[in-house]
Amino acid sequence: MGRHKPWFVGYLKGKDWLSNYDYDIDTVFKVLQAARELKQMYHSGVRKVNWLEGKMLYLIFYNKSLRTRNSFQTGVYQLGGQATYISPDQVYAPTLPEDMVPYQTEAISDVARVLSRYGDAIAIRIYGDAAKWIIGRGHRIIREFAKWADIPVLNMEDDVWHPFQSLADAQAALEALGWPKDLRGKKVVVSYAYSGGLKPLAVPQDVASMFALLGADVYVAHPPGFELMDEAMQIAKKYAEHWGSEFKIVHDMDEAFEGATIVYPKAWSPRGFFPPYNSTVDKEGAKAYQDKFKNWIVTMERLEKAGKPFYMHCGPADRGQEVTDEVLDSYEKSLYFEEAENRLHVQKAVMSMVMGE
Amino acid sequence: MGRHKPWFVGYLKGKDWLSNYDYDIDTVFKVLQAARELKQMYHSGVRKVNWLEGKMLYLIFYNKSLRTRNSFQTGVYQLGGQATYISPDQVYAPTLPEDMVPYQTEAISDVARVLSRYGDAIAIRIYGDAAKWIIGRGHRIIREFAKWADIPVLNMEDDVWHPFQSLADAQAALEALGWPKDLRGKKVVVSYAYSGGLKPLAVPQDVASMFALLGADVYVAHPPGFELMDEAMQIAKKYAEHWGSEFKIVHDMDEAFEGATIVYPKAWSPRGFFPPYNSTVDKEGAKAYQDKFKNWIVTMERLEKAGKPFYMHCGPADRGQEVTDEVLDSYEKSLYFEEAENRLHVQKAVMSMVMGE
Amino acid sequence: MGRHKPWFVGYLKGKDWLSNYDYDIDTVFKVLQAARELKQMYHSGVRKVNWLEGKMLYLIFYNKSLRTRNSFQTGVYQLGGQATYISPDQVYAPTLPEDMVPYQTEAISDVARVLSRYGDAIAIRIYGDAAKWIIGRGHRIIREFAKWADIPVLNMEDDVWHPFQSLADAQAALEALGWPKDLRGKKVVVSYAYSGGLKPLAVPQDVASMFALLGADVYVAHPPGFELMDEAMQIAKKYAEHWGSEFKIVHDMDEAFEGATIVYPKAWSPRGFFPPYNSTVDKEGAKAYQDKFKNWIVTMERLEKAGKPFYMHCGPADRGQEVTDEVLDSYEKSLYFEEAENRLHVQKAVMSMVMGE
Repeated sequence: MGRHKPWFVGYLKGKDWLSNYDYDIDTVFKVLQAARELKQMYHSGVRKVNWLEGKMLYLIFYNKSLRTRNSFQTGVYQLGGQATYISPDQVYAPTLPEDMVPYQTEAISDVARVLSRYGDAIAIRIYGDAAKWIIGRGHRIIREFAKWADIPVLNMEDDVWHPFQSLADAQAALEALGWPKDLRGKKVVVSYAYSGGLKPLAVPQDVASMFALLGADVYVAHPPGFELMDEAMQIAKKYAEHWGSEFKIVHDMDEAFEGATIVYPKAWSPRGFFPPYNSTVDKEGAKAYQDKFKNWIVTMERLEKAGKPFYMHCGPADRGQEVTDEVLDSYEKSLYFEEAENRLHVQKAVMSMVMGE
Repeated sequence: MGRHKPWFVGYLKGKDWLSNYDYDIDTVFKVLQAARELKQMYHSGVRKVNWLEGKMLYLIFYNKSLRTRNSFQTGVYQLGGQATYISPDQVYAPTLPEDMVPYQTEAISDVARVLSRYGDAIAIRIYGDAAKWIIGRGHRIIREFAKWADIPVLNMEDDVWHPFQSLADAQAALEALGWPKDLRGKKVVVSYAYSGGLKPLAVPQDVASMFALLGADVYVAHPPGFELMDEAMQIAKKYAEHWGSEFKIVHDMDEAFEGATIVYPKAWSPRGFFPPYNSTVDKEGAKAYQDKFKNWIVTMERLEKAGKPFYMHCGPADRGQEVTDEVLDSYEKSLYFEEAENRLHVQKAVMSMVMGE
Repeated sequence: MGRHKPWFVGYLKGKDWLSNYDYDIDTVFKVLQAARELKQMYHSGVRKVNWLEGKMLYLIFYNKSLRTRNSFQTGVYQLGGQATYISPDQVYAPTLPEDMVPYQTEAISDVARVLSRYGDAIAIRIYGDAAKWIIGRGHRIIREFAKWADIPVLNMEDDVWHPFQSLADAQAALEALGWPKDLRGKKVVVSYAYSGGLKPLAVPQDVASMFALLGADVYVAHPPGFELMDEAMQIAKKYAEHWGSEFKIVHDMDEAFEGATIVYPKAWSPRGFFPPYNSTVDKEGAKAYQDKFKNWIVTMERLEKAGKPFYMHCGPADRGQEVTDEVLDSYEKSLYFEEAENRLHVQKAVMSMVMGE
């Protein structure tokens, strides 16, 4: 495969990747197929190809990152290109037109147009404090970049979606199940799990939608007050209708886990304490409220009682809160590190498609 | 062109680029010619050549940057080399011999000599707070680097000059005017424009000198108290004498704009509040003083009244202070994004010349 | 040599490099031989080879750095690979199992395993505040990385060892002396020198052990209270026994210097003010104590009186405290810049060995 360009290079030349659900089901499956081929190539010992030679990817991070950053930096290099990492402290907050403050901010329209003159793609991560904890603002900022850039824009996680995470998870699930044509008839549970930190809603929303897109019966489990955004739930329901599969919201972890093929338990924040669901940003209120649900933790016992489903988590998992050390370090059906690895492969797939010729 | 080395690669092998005016007029024109050829190559689709293969460029930033950093990182990579970005918080303040504090600073002489053992060029940005707001100190620091380094040193903007900006601007002006042999008979206005921020004098000084070097009739327009440094003005005057062109200082924006081919209105700080023009650094005094000149703003009306000159600004422009959104987003004779793009090409020209073999 | 792979590429494929003394004497000499060949290649004008093409090295810095960082970033690039620099502010403190705080730290076991899925080696620097000033904790953290990573782990300096520094120093000493088979019969003094800063014990410990490994008669000179760790001293003594050479601890700088071939005077901290040698971290006590020894400074007079030995220091030296400007800038037998340069060559040697195929 090495130097020969496969079918997916340039397959979506010049397109953005802001949400998986901007594309049809067939295109998402094509990304997963490309990721599968790239993973085989990687494990056969091919470290570098020249498909993106001379191409520069700008990575703009408004939040800290280990997995996302390193998988992108390594991935684009393995494809023959190069990344420039721009860390939170080196840049001004990206600013929508209504929020401009002269000489303290920089208009997204200007940043996007300038970088379009130099390089070949822009990837952005923005959520939480960097997006003022107004849920949906991070995603609007990424859409604003895409509006002005002449080169592909990639979403490295905002406050609505985390598209490359759910693609990596889809790949891990398909691998674990022997790469079936789809996941019809499989029960997948996307569940809340407790953390003392405040996390965005992006991962559960994207993962629930993705498993629905793959045809699984999707159960979203959470305590009251942890509702996900209607926008995301409508997308998941639409896919459930397409496949004739189930989509349910339940409020008990054990009940949800019963008979599941896969469980994906992870923390997110109770949205009612943040705009637009609240008039102010109330972090302390959110923390006090979520502290009532410390029993939403994944243990060996819980997994065994549920019939030993595959365990998934995007990482980093909060040990002792979302999950016990024992599960993370020794549960034989954990896909934790495969999910992390697949970030590399799905991102290489999409970069090859949109940045390649 | 791709793999074949053109005439300019290694043309100034081993030289520094600290100020455009360390070189004769012919050499500056040669840089612009090389930048023109590189831009044509880039737009013909050649993304990468191997002229600087294996060469490492160290980028030392004591101030934040988006354009300068990304155009250098991308440019050296497109030439086959590589950059290491060193951000403000990762390094100690570069220190002149008289300011050394043991175990808190590092002598420029040591830093420059060590990096000379590893790589192939050092580029530095330092002005404002990083140079203690003593005007001219940043430039002295860059000269100190050049004194000790065995490899080329490049000036990415200090408190006297911003050489790659004015080269990029020269290229944009020549392009807009059909690439004439020189700019004799063209009126160019370098004008103050209001900002609430404190900006260095480097850009107006370098741009005024550059347009004088190109043979234009140069008008510098500013309110009283915004005088530029004599050192820079003498250079501009010398070029005006060489070409027999005009060099004037005026104090009214509209009067200056009248009949201009190009206007370049941008903020800088009133020097009288800073050493060596003042005994102390008086930022509050400077801000209070400059706030009297908010009417020095570029609007559509002003440009139309002046006869629709080309509009130039190095970016980022302070929207609503230096210039209206309307001018930046829809004035048809704006060169704003061409100037930004040309940073890439002029820097690739100089890097090819001084770092190439 | 250029494209042809020499004997040392892949010689220690997949191994870690945490301490030079994990290896036998012959292997250390092989690294020095490889570094010598790499230096010759570099000075013959070969800037880049493809031995590590497609290989990604992660550089995790919990402390600031100029030499170490730039020599690694440049070195891996010159070998055909690439580095990702992760700066202190972009990452959470690496955490041993007993210190985990959910959603504020990240388990070393997870970080190491995730990076092992993407790239080809992990290099780490951690000492001082980043290791809580518990002497030995930094080294334990690096061993923990090595325990979990599937790819080579390299020690870029911790609170016990600085292996690449002492390898670079060994190369500089061998070069200065005409590259003898070993250093038997040569007196080498590793001495304390005053600084107002608090420095780790890693350099003197590693340099004393390295010169003992090379067969030199090693004298460690320091005021009372500046004892080095027993662990390191035992290693040095073991080598002295192997060669039948001397290993002495003395308490007077001038007496130690007398008749020396090489002196290596450098600051470190009095260990008695830090755990495990003290019940608390007492930085102020340490500073007050070391301030009594300002006369431990290297001057021209001192070097002349000693018979003009070679002067060595890992850099950056604290001018006016550890050493005078005069020595650093004009002593003809200073190896200061050769030591800095050799960091590049010894690191390229080890990277070629452990990361190469």
